[in-house]
Amino acid sequence: MIDPRVASGLRDIPPSVMIPRERMLATFRRTFASFGYVPIETPHIERMEVLTGKGAGSDEVLRQIFEVINKGGEAGKLALRFDLTVPLARFVAKHVNELGTPFKRYAIGSVFRGERPAKGRFREFVQCDFDTVGTESAVADAETAHVIYAALTAAGVPAFRITLNNRKILDGLLDTLGAADKTGPVLRALDKLAKVGRDKVLGELQRGEEDSSTRLLSAEQAARILDFVEQGQGGVEVLSRVEETLGRHPRAAEGIANLRTILGLLDAASVPAAYLALDLGLARGLDYYTGVVFETTINGWEKFGSISSGGRYDNLASLFTDRRLPGVGASIGLDRLLALMEEAGWLQGTATTVPVLIAQFPGVDAAVAVKLGARLRAAGVGAEVFPEPIQVGKQMGYGSTRGHKVAVIVGPDEAGKELFNLRDLATRQEQKAIPWAELEASVKRALGDS
Amino acid sequence: MIDPRVASGLRDIPPSVMIPRERMLATFRRTFASFGYVPIETPHIERMEVLTGKGAGSDEVLRQIFEVINKGGEAGKLALRFDLTVPLARFVAKHVNELGTPFKRYAIGSVFRGERPAKGRFREFVQCDFDTVGTESAVADAETAHVIYAALTAAGVPAFRITLNNRKILDGLLDTLGAADKTGPVLRALDKLAKVGRDKVLGELQRGEEDSSTRLLSAEQAARILDFVEQGQGGVEVLSRVEETLGRHPRAAEGIANLRTILGLLDAASVPAAYLALDLGLARGLDYYTGVVFETTINGWEKFGSISSGGRYDNLASLFTDRRLPGVGASIGLDRLLALMEEAGWLQGTATTVPVLIAQFPGVDAAVAVKLGARLRAAGVGAEVFPEPIQVGKQMGYGSTRGHKVAVIVGPDEAGKELFNLRDLATRQEQKAIPWAELEASVKRALGDS
Repeated sequence: MIDPRVASGLRDIPPSVMIPRERMLATFRRTFASFGYVPIETPHIERMEVLTGKGAGSDEVLRQIFEVINKGGEAGKLALRFDLTVPLARFVAKHVNELGTPFKRYAIGSVFRGERPAKGRFREFVQCDFDTVGTESAVADAETAHVIYAALTAAGVPAFRITLNNRKILDGLLDTLGAADKTGPVLRALDKLAKVGRDKVLGELQRGEEDSSTRLLSAEQAARILDFVEQGQGGVEVLSRVEETLGRHPRAAEGIANLRTILGLLDAASVPAAYLALDLGLARGLDYYTGVVFETTINGWEKFGSISSGGRYDNLASLFTDRRLPGVGASIGLDRLLALMEEAGWLQGTATTVPVLIAQFPGVDAAVAVKLGARLRAAGVGAEVFPEPIQVGKQMGYGSTRGHKVAVIVGPDEAGKELFNLRDLATRQEQKAIPWAELEASVKRALGDS
Repeated sequence: MIDPRVASGLRDIPPSVMIPRERMLATFRRTFASFGYVPIETPHIERMEVLTGKGAGSDEVLRQIFEVINKGGEAGKLALRFDLTVPLARFVAKHVNELGTPFKRYAIGSVFRGERPAKGRFREFVQCDFDTVGTESAVADAETAHVIYAALTAAGVPAFRITLNNRKILDGLLDTLGAADKTGPVLRALDKLAKVGRDKVLGELQRGEEDSSTRLLSAEQAARILDFVEQGQGGVEVLSRVEETLGRHPRAAEGIANLRTILGLLDAASVPAAYLALDLGLARGLDYYTGVVFETTINGWEKFGSISSGGRYDNLASLFTDRRLPGVGASIGLDRLLALMEEAGWLQGTATTVPVLIAQFPGVDAAVAVKLGARLRAAGVGAEVFPEPIQVGKQMGYGSTRGHKVAVIVGPDEAGKELFNLRDLATRQEQKAIPWAELEASVKRALGDS
């Protein structure tokens, strides 16, 4: 006997999780498509050099890579993708001439990272990405936030907050402080602000020996940055404040104008202001992005972290082509969102895809159940025929456990007269002796009631 | 620069293929679900011993396996799945106690085989599997063919043929001929009948030295088998004929009765007889299956081979559990079917997911286009806002190329008066100066007409 366990860090997804997951995926596909994003698919396996090219993934991600070897093939040549962004860059570089720009694509698929196994973290998980490539337009920036709003709302998330920032504002601030070359380490320090607090970040910003060239920032520089960041949270009024201090710096002014335009377009799109927030300290991903950045948290569930992040990049595919391809996009973390919604009790639990169970009565021709099932499906009502004429009580138990709503039962007496009984599996009440001619209408009525 | 090509035998799927593919997958999911099959998902990566356990895969499939190695991990421990059946067996063995039986599941996902690259053959392809586990009922057998019929019909395949056989009938014939122990090689010889013709198969059935114990079959045995098989094609009348010769053999009689029951249930389910055929020589997969088997070819496109195959197995999960789990199921080859439908011209070509393009007129506030787009989406009409206010003719070209049907255009004159123009992108005719208040109604009317 072989142990039927899955490999470490991987998992089986049972029907009770897959049913709401498929519903959510269908919602995301429909939402992306309604904005004109088109689907593409790339292989799960990529050539190693595509994935490990300079800047493709962080060092951490590259340490977690899963190598793939064909029987008789050479080692080091193939690997499983760790995100959908590097494959998008490769895809666009290869196909941009046929596709033209702007190119708006969505992609939904598994990615693989050999992280240390931990509760709620898996080595295979699904990302849902959408991007607009080949334009610098703020309309595309705003649409990215609009799509996040539309997708989460359609998926039934009650209240959430999309936080925005623009990398150019912090660039401007650092430049005015004479620290334009220190963006990277400053961003990484700021990223920890919510977790470790002001004092520790102040310390990290001033690390290195005092009065030495190895010192990152002076005490005054560090304090100015933290003051700036801590006052930079809120609505559009934040932009008026920062305009006073940084409005004359060309790069900062670009960032401010971009956020102002985005908020205006989101208002035109009827995205409620309560779902939007500015945070000039939002640092995550800034190292990678070059303009607007997004993070999304669910109200009351901020501890889960961001469930949709993204931003604008200047040059997506520079590893693969000389052609400059700016773009903007975001990714929704399906599995994290589902885990959150399950914990919050927002998912409707069911282990069936159909509302109707057709029982098979012992002694009645199975063709009766099969025929009634086919009729219900033709009328648009999902119906499962129990495959064996076992004791009817056990069949009802099967339906109750899985969440079927009603059962159609045809005993020997009913079969001859073309009648059926309709049982509500929650209340156990039964309507008796309904003519087959009224099957579709009476089942639909019962489902409407239940 | 890194070459943006995919690895050998793999491919990118562009929007023009993905759009009908996603539509087809949604159709399959909806069909499977309407019969009460529930979705599950298993990891793309399995433990090597799960995939290579005795009987899990054929020698050929095992030679084609893709090994997976985590950084710092041991070789030989992990691999990519080559089908969805072995993972189902493992899943059921592990979870059957929570899930109960009958367990009806569908699974859709990529599988990986390192086949020699060739036109139309890829090393990653998608299978769409559905199975009923834990019952020997002929109702489940019939339902398997019913689901194939329903899925292909819903996907828009105009005419096809589901061919059925039952392994037990050939078992009975071989037993009466005193060759019960020679099923395997006989089946493999019969499998080639359509390709190589009667004479070559006769030769193969009599291979080995004459009058020696190494001889597979005598000339008379071989001729009897071929006569039997060649007269065994057609409708239910085939069963009456075979009943005369084999009706007294218990195992053959079981097979005959099973096929008769299945045809009766499919008639009750209103599956037209023209879509069904018996073929007592249908051998493919018989080595693996133990009861009914199915193959499906598209009328006029038989050269593409079977696009949906399956059958009944006695004991799915014997590698992983002592519990006997009989079942029946089938797999639809998504990529093969799509390739066929594309070649046949049955796919509607389009490279957009929305019917409406909203132009951005130079000099008009982008908020106008964004607002009108949001209104159309809220009314259930997919709408794409062009992201930049470039020359309107170029925006119209973008829409025509991709297959948008109409364009909404608001120039500076219209913007102030809250009017828009509606252009049919196929005929280039334009309705002028429609009030914004009539946006949804007029666009829907135009799409209904176009």
